[in-house]
Amino acid sequence: MASLTVPAEVPSVAEDCEQLRSAFKGWGTNEKLIISILAHRNAAQRKLIRQTYAETFGEDLLKEIGTGRNLTHDFEKLVLIWTLDPSERDAYLAKEATKRWTKSNFVLVEIACTRSPKELVLAREAYHARNKKSLEEDVAYHTTGDHRKLLVPLVSSYRYGGDEVDLRLAKAESKVLHEKISDKAYSDDEVIRILATRSKAQLNATLNHYKDEYGEDILKQLEDEDEFVALLRATIKGLVYPEHYFVEVLRDAINRRGTEEDHLSRVIATRAEVDLKTIANEYQKRDSIPLGRAIAKDTGGDYENMLVALLGQEEE
Amino acid sequence: MASLTVPAEVPSVAEDCEQLRSAFKGWGTNEKLIISILAHRNAAQRKLIRQTYAETFGEDLLKEIGTGRNLTHDFEKLVLIWTLDPSERDAYLAKEATKRWTKSNFVLVEIACTRSPKELVLAREAYHARNKKSLEEDVAYHTTGDHRKLLVPLVSSYRYGGDEVDLRLAKAESKVLHEKISDKAYSDDEVIRILATRSKAQLNATLNHYKDEYGEDILKQLEDEDEFVALLRATIKGLVYPEHYFVEVLRDAINRRGTEEDHLSRVIATRAEVDLKTIANEYQKRDSIPLGRAIAKDTGGDYENMLVALLGQEEE
Repeated sequence: MASLTVPAEVPSVAEDCEQLRSAFKGWGTNEKLIISILAHRNAAQRKLIRQTYAETFGEDLLKEIGTGRNLTHDFEKLVLIWTLDPSERDAYLAKEATKRWTKSNFVLVEIACTRSPKELVLAREAYHARNKKSLEEDVAYHTTGDHRKLLVPLVSSYRYGGDEVDLRLAKAESKVLHEKISDKAYSDDEVIRILATRSKAQLNATLNHYKDEYGEDILKQLEDEDEFVALLRATIKGLVYPEHYFVEVLRDAINRRGTEEDHLSRVIATRAEVDLKTIANEYQKRDSIPLGRAIAKDTGGDYENMLVALLGQEEE
Repeated sequence: MASLTVPAEVPSVAEDCEQLRSAFKGWGTNEKLIISILAHRNAAQRKLIRQTYAETFGEDLLKEIGTGRNLTHDFEKLVLIWTLDPSERDAYLAKEATKRWTKSNFVLVEIACTRSPKELVLAREAYHARNKKSLEEDVAYHTTGDHRKLLVPLVSSYRYGGDEVDLRLAKAESKVLHEKISDKAYSDDEVIRILATRSKAQLNATLNHYKDEYGEDILKQLEDEDEFVALLRATIKGLVYPEHYFVEVLRDAINRRGTEEDHLSRVIATRAEVDLKTIANEYQKRDSIPLGRAIAKDTGGDYENMLVALLGQEEE
């Protein structure tokens, strides 16, 4: 379930634009006003606001956000990625990830695995438009060996999105996975083929059969300290248990010494319109503290206010 | 340039449907009438005819074609694949290819490399709808080793489609290709990365630089008898010299003992609306015989008539 709240009576686009203009151009930026508008409009509404803003004032709303004199960096960046269209946002996040390697591989796995197949294709299309390159081109160019072998097919996939499941196949492929993972042959061709090409419904059936037949959870078998194994874990979680995956990213981001704002902002901005309410419920079950409170404890100011607004947990 | 000819005054869709109905349901199928209509309508018109036919007569036009009592197999199949929407047709051809392996790998390379990036994505979408599987899923499942290593990224690619070229990159990557190909390391990761991910414009620049710098044509270096090398040749030709690629397929199909109707029909049906006129000109330059005459010599009856109609070389 999404966490985004949109008022029953939304002001006209022209009105929203006027208000945003005054928020940027007044004496000091009016962050509260920015939040009260942008954090409560859905993707279609935000898109229209951006168009109308550009037509009315001859300036790109996103540039106004990016150059606001008094906006703090974390707040700015969160408003920016939130305001982007979902496919443009994914293209932006993926590009950031291909620029800085090491840990950012997770972002690529996240985009490749937790979006719907169609959303991933749209993100690749937006990537073309922004970067004059393809996503898989940049990923393949910047990686080698096992990382390339896993990441390129993941970001290139256009999985079947239906619910149909072939149980005979699930059985056969759970056997293959069990053999390979038990042998620690993590980057075996067959392991990557199965994870990179099968539909999410099919993979779910395969992993259920895995647990039933072998009495083990595949994720439990993937707890080596190895960086590639961690990517494989993220792949499986992202594909089959996306809410758990996001809860884990949020816990990591919040509980770290010094909050990892990039990860926190990314998850809140990308999921608010999708399943952030479900994720927040899972979070609370797991950590016995509401996600909103955990975030409020670790962040502050307008950044905190914007996160909490997207979580749908503002106090009126 | 396309070879398809559409009359200046096209009858109404309803009229076309009535005529087609009478062609199927009269005393013996009226092939001439079928050709005179379907071989002279563009994709949008054919789509509308299919819809209207289904609405009017409660039957799928393609089923009528497929079950026509008197239609010969080659004619039937050609009319069928021609009538399909281009993306559906590619999905159909790709599925045929994943069912029978050996030589049909070429069809997959052809679809992956000669279509525009967007057309390939639409073909993958149509593949989902027809097969409840993804194209890359079937390709990966049915291949192993080097073939999988090449074919899966080719069919999964969504290349950047713009004309921008990075000359420094072209230089660097032509060096990589030259080293690997000279060492006969045909299935090297880098060779496959470059061919499977770079835009067509970029690859063209890279291969031009290759020729200039090393005084050799990469295709001339890929003349081993090996099946994988042949696939690599087809990949490069399909991406950078598609007309030459199709001329070669046509020559092979026509000059073989017993024409290869599947290949002939596929090329004519998939290119008539795209570049078949250009291909026919190239063919004539190469073989000093008009493509229409070469086809007429080797085929006969309604099959010949339909091919020649799509070539735009009917006598009035």
